[in-house]
Amino acid sequence: MNFLEERIQKDGIVKEGNVLKVDSFLNHQMDIDLFNMMGEEFKKRFEGKNINKILTIEASGIGIACIVAQHFNVPVVFAKKSKSINLEGEMYVAEVESFTHKCKNQVIVSKKYLDEDSHVLIIDDFLANGCALQGLIGIVQAAGGTVEGIGIAVEKGFQAGGKMIRNLGYQLESLAIVDSMDPQTGKIEFRQR
Amino acid sequence: MNFLEERIQKDGIVKEGNVLKVDSFLNHQMDIDLFNMMGEEFKKRFEGKNINKILTIEASGIGIACIVAQHFNVPVVFAKKSKSINLEGEMYVAEVESFTHKCKNQVIVSKKYLDEDSHVLIIDDFLANGCALQGLIGIVQAAGGTVEGIGIAVEKGFQAGGKMIRNLGYQLESLAIVDSMDPQTGKIEFRQR
Repeated sequence: MNFLEERIQKDGIVKEGNVLKVDSFLNHQMDIDLFNMMGEEFKKRFEGKNINKILTIEASGIGIACIVAQHFNVPVVFAKKSKSINLEGEMYVAEVESFTHKCKNQVIVSKKYLDEDSHVLIIDDFLANGCALQGLIGIVQAAGGTVEGIGIAVEKGFQAGGKMIRNLGYQLESLAIVDSMDPQTGKIEFRQR
Repeated sequence: MNFLEERIQKDGIVKEGNVLKVDSFLNHQMDIDLFNMMGEEFKKRFEGKNINKILTIEASGIGIACIVAQHFNVPVVFAKKSKSINLEGEMYVAEVESFTHKCKNQVIVSKKYLDEDSHVLIIDDFLANGCALQGLIGIVQAAGGTVEGIGIAVEKGFQAGGKMIRNLGYQLESLAIVDSMDPQTGKIEFRQR
């Protein structure tokens, strides 16, 4: 097990309905040292890629993305989930369905911050059905930019998102892939590399 | 002018209705080097304070809070704006009205991550009417914790929030206090220290 799998095994809580709670260190309380270890690991896995921007989606992707960005020396842009009066002008828009919240959101990125010169690493905390990722990929494509890679903390390997994104040819690196989990015993099986 | 005031003068855009757009470096695209300079500055201003947790609010506070947290070696907790099926159990709740979005939100923090041993530095990107801050302060108080200080990137000095929070006796440090701004000329006046 790597450092993140160990942490999930130790502090993650498995709930009915395929819910994995990692809110003590990943997406409500955030362990910044852990995020830096993730940044180091992503830097290794995307070695040689020409990355000049990180794109994530609010809210729980932002902290990871900002810490990871220090390992690449690039700015972060986060896609916003609702229309803001402060975000006027031309925007890229994608529809995203949330597994957690059971609702559809429009996510938007200002056209000022992505263009054909953008070489983008997409970062997010969770990958399940892949809807959020599809939205972010669509936004980079609409901007004429390049998705250089996708870095995810926790992938639910038993849902379709990861397979679909890899089938599309993207370099998708998930630091922990959960293949199964048992709410009765709390046991979590990670995919072997 | 300090580094943040200079950046606001250079890249901030003044709009009608007392809107200051800083989305090219602060709250949509995020300049991580700038956030680290903010972290250094907050570390100086809160020298000697016993801080063991940073509390912020989604979404645009999260990036700043995570980078600042590295200068204090503490975890970050972010208050969530909507109820999530993944955030069960006992929660602290506050009502927060947003200046930007003209709506009321409930913000919630799990009781697991704040208690009477929490010595909290509250971090946020903007301070205007102070509603978000009041909510966060209320949550720390409900937990029996201590607000050791409040660090803000940009304060709108012509709105009531800053004065109110200082009158309550909190150490509130805003890195840039905008006393007036002119949408016609783009001129921004910062408070002298």
